[in-house]
Amino acid sequence: MKTIKIGLLGLGNIGTGTYKTLEMNKAEIEKAAGTRVEITRILEKDINRDRGIAVPVDKFTSDPDEIFKDPEIDIVIELLGGIEPASTFMLSAMENGKHVVSANKAAIAANYDKLMETASRNNVIFRFEASVGGGIPILGTLTGPLCANKFEEVMGIVNGTTNYILTKMTVEGLDYDTVLKDAQAKGFAEADPTADVEGIDAANKLSILMALMFDKYVSPDSIPTTGITHITKESIEAARSKDCTIKLIAHARKLENGDIDYKVAPMEIANDHPLASINNEFNAVFVTGNAVGDVMFYGKGAGPLPTGSAVLGDVIEISKAILK
Amino acid sequence: MKTIKIGLLGLGNIGTGTYKTLEMNKAEIEKAAGTRVEITRILEKDINRDRGIAVPVDKFTSDPDEIFKDPEIDIVIELLGGIEPASTFMLSAMENGKHVVSANKAAIAANYDKLMETASRNNVIFRFEASVGGGIPILGTLTGPLCANKFEEVMGIVNGTTNYILTKMTVEGLDYDTVLKDAQAKGFAEADPTADVEGIDAANKLSILMALMFDKYVSPDSIPTTGITHITKESIEAARSKDCTIKLIAHARKLENGDIDYKVAPMEIANDHPLASINNEFNAVFVTGNAVGDVMFYGKGAGPLPTGSAVLGDVIEISKAILK
Repeated sequence: MKTIKIGLLGLGNIGTGTYKTLEMNKAEIEKAAGTRVEITRILEKDINRDRGIAVPVDKFTSDPDEIFKDPEIDIVIELLGGIEPASTFMLSAMENGKHVVSANKAAIAANYDKLMETASRNNVIFRFEASVGGGIPILGTLTGPLCANKFEEVMGIVNGTTNYILTKMTVEGLDYDTVLKDAQAKGFAEADPTADVEGIDAANKLSILMALMFDKYVSPDSIPTTGITHITKESIEAARSKDCTIKLIAHARKLENGDIDYKVAPMEIANDHPLASINNEFNAVFVTGNAVGDVMFYGKGAGPLPTGSAVLGDVIEISKAILK
Repeated sequence: MKTIKIGLLGLGNIGTGTYKTLEMNKAEIEKAAGTRVEITRILEKDINRDRGIAVPVDKFTSDPDEIFKDPEIDIVIELLGGIEPASTFMLSAMENGKHVVSANKAAIAANYDKLMETASRNNVIFRFEASVGGGIPILGTLTGPLCANKFEEVMGIVNGTTNYILTKMTVEGLDYDTVLKDAQAKGFAEADPTADVEGIDAANKLSILMALMFDKYVSPDSIPTTGITHITKESIEAARSKDCTIKLIAHARKLENGDIDYKVAPMEIANDHPLASINNEFNAVFVTGNAVGDVMFYGKGAGPLPTGSAVLGDVIEISKAILK
């Protein structure tokens, strides 16, 4: 029986979660893949950090070419985060004939066309389920079970940090600065929260959703993006008086003339809409198709194990394709 | 380019919806399938009914063998409903080397092992996304993007009729008999509502969910099943006083000893649980996996076009496999 061999780029929180998920569910994953699956090499400088898992030291390398040029490696999982060197590494892996799985929305949204073209030219599979909605299986559903639809609209709560902040402001009546500090103390917001609170992370995810739903790539820089830093107790109260809740929404809609209207912005969502009750760090993506109507997918948009679930779902799909 | 040829069993509401969805989204479906897709034969006696679609009369047949024995037909879509003759027809189609797609939860739940064994023995694909949750892509997600998980629990609102009745009772304070009559007048409940209100339809769907999630087939007859006919205004008020809402839940949970605990019953769901706000005829399936945590899928659990979306999603998957 063939063993699918994986090179992992990055053993931070998400990389560790992916490694743990593979160890924890190895029997289920190998049954679904129809083959043995093993992470054989890991690009990571920090060998000694205590990650709560036993990783054989000889798996570590600090030279990416030891992964890209290894003829035994079938799949490269990129979990470095950030646009570079992640994008260059993914392209190198593809040029060397490796299938690629990534959770890196910033790199994918920035270089979508180049990554898709390079994967296609090298006849390798490129999957990135974890890049939008973390563990929520939204991308594989749009391109799989729902692909008999013409898509009309997507509204996504795709950033857990801002949804946590807005939920606390709404439920507890606190102001933005107070909640941000609390979120930072609890680890729900980063020390520099710009990418989350200014809507940049949500714009990356909307760029990826639009590419898959509407076959239209829009650079995240070109998506009109408003964050939540100007939201006040008063704006939340004003929404409440209209029986609405403010949510940061990644929104794209097909117009009658075929154009796509898109933006990331805080929106007043009517309280009887399913998105209004998506609270705290949870994510949800609400999609309208011309046959299926409205569907919504809800779950944890981040976290090591949910992200590991999505990454390994992609690994299983690629493994099945390799074996055919 | 090959044309995937389909024999359709039944041109009732769901069959008509599937036919319409294929006409409406032919370009998207054929692009996703990578081939032309055509319904070439239809088993249906009622040729003259006005369905709002133009079906060439020479596609109709009243002899199922004209489909099963036709060497040109690749896929049989079974949309007859009811356990027989649907089950026998699906088995005959498989024995004749046809891939099978079905939306028929009663037939699949009653004959799950026989259908799976027959498909496997004849090396054909058997898919049934539309049988649970209608348009909601839950089955393909459990067996696809989420299959790196050990599943722990499922709670499903999988019957639109009972959810409509319970919602009206809860929101408008009406009693069961009054709402049932209203639902029947509006077409949301059948003249004989037994299969819905007694939980039988939900038990069929739970049987299918358990088979896929826990690799354990339980006949729907063996699932402890309580319907909603005994629910009163008073029971709904008692739930409300505990900040809960009564929902008919198809529930299965893996116990620590590995056994599965399962039942269909009305349950008091805490109002801050995402299932509590699933209203009217909508369905939702809430799943817990050991890596992904809680995820929920929401959408229309019935209807000609949502069901057509799911059926054609299966047709696309099979077409891709045929072409490989």
